[in-house]
Amino acid sequence: MKPTGPLAIAAGLALQLFAAPSHADAVRDAIDTANRSFVERFVARDMHGVSELYTEDACLIAPGAARACGRAAIAAFWAGARETTKGVSLETDEVGSAGDLAYGDGTVHLVGLDGKESSARYVVVWKRVGGRWMLHRDIWN
Amino acid sequence: MKPTGPLAIAAGLALQLFAAPSHADAVRDAIDTANRSFVERFVARDMHGVSELYTEDACLIAPGAARACGRAAIAAFWAGARETTKGVSLETDEVGSAGDLAYGDGTVHLVGLDGKESSARYVVVWKRVGGRWMLHRDIWN
Repeated sequence: MKPTGPLAIAAGLALQLFAAPSHADAVRDAIDTANRSFVERFVARDMHGVSELYTEDACLIAPGAARACGRAAIAAFWAGARETTKGVSLETDEVGSAGDLAYGDGTVHLVGLDGKESSARYVVVWKRVGGRWMLHRDIWN
Repeated sequence: MKPTGPLAIAAGLALQLFAAPSHADAVRDAIDTANRSFVERFVARDMHGVSELYTEDACLIAPGAARACGRAAIAAFWAGARETTKGVSLETDEVGSAGDLAYGDGTVHLVGLDGKESSARYVVVWKRVGGRWMLHRDIWN
């Protein structure tokens, strides 16, 4: 029988707090960090910086637009989007990973230059290249 | 120096033909097979069969619809789509994989009941569960 009661629960919590982060937690942290960089760079109109969060052969698949593959095309896409969007935030639902491949899905919330809010659901396929997790496929609807 | 000439080329081709398929080829074959099953079952209105191509905790993210998670919701979504769609074909661009995770992107071509053709770009995250590759996230726009 597993020990229960407040002390056992406290001991369990302490073990969790001091345990090394799992592979899954580490991947999720890396993805959260990359997503924060995305938002900061996008708002600061640093589209070269945004494109460097993507793999060199990444593709962005936006509704109603041609598929944008490669960092130059991706930077150009986001530069265009920034003309009508002042704010963006990302809410991640689930992250899964195996080796150097991961995916994350969630909701992106947008604020237009006119203050109008909208949202879309997205899936990103992430790839670890040279130790760094980068967006490899980016699609929303 | 590498031997060249017709005989060396023929020998090289023969080696390729008899080599065991790579992990990447095997994953791509499994995904192509699952995609063919998808099309057959969809056209035959076997939506239970379609839903069994998905993991138990899969989510389908269709434009203009609520996220459909779980096989029952996914079967219901495709049953609704079948009412207006008579034909579907899938064209895969790229497949990548690591361990039990893979992704594939491409174009889906649809033929409506009225014969009207349309297409959409998709990304699918695949997961190998119990040795079988299944759709885990399915999004298009």
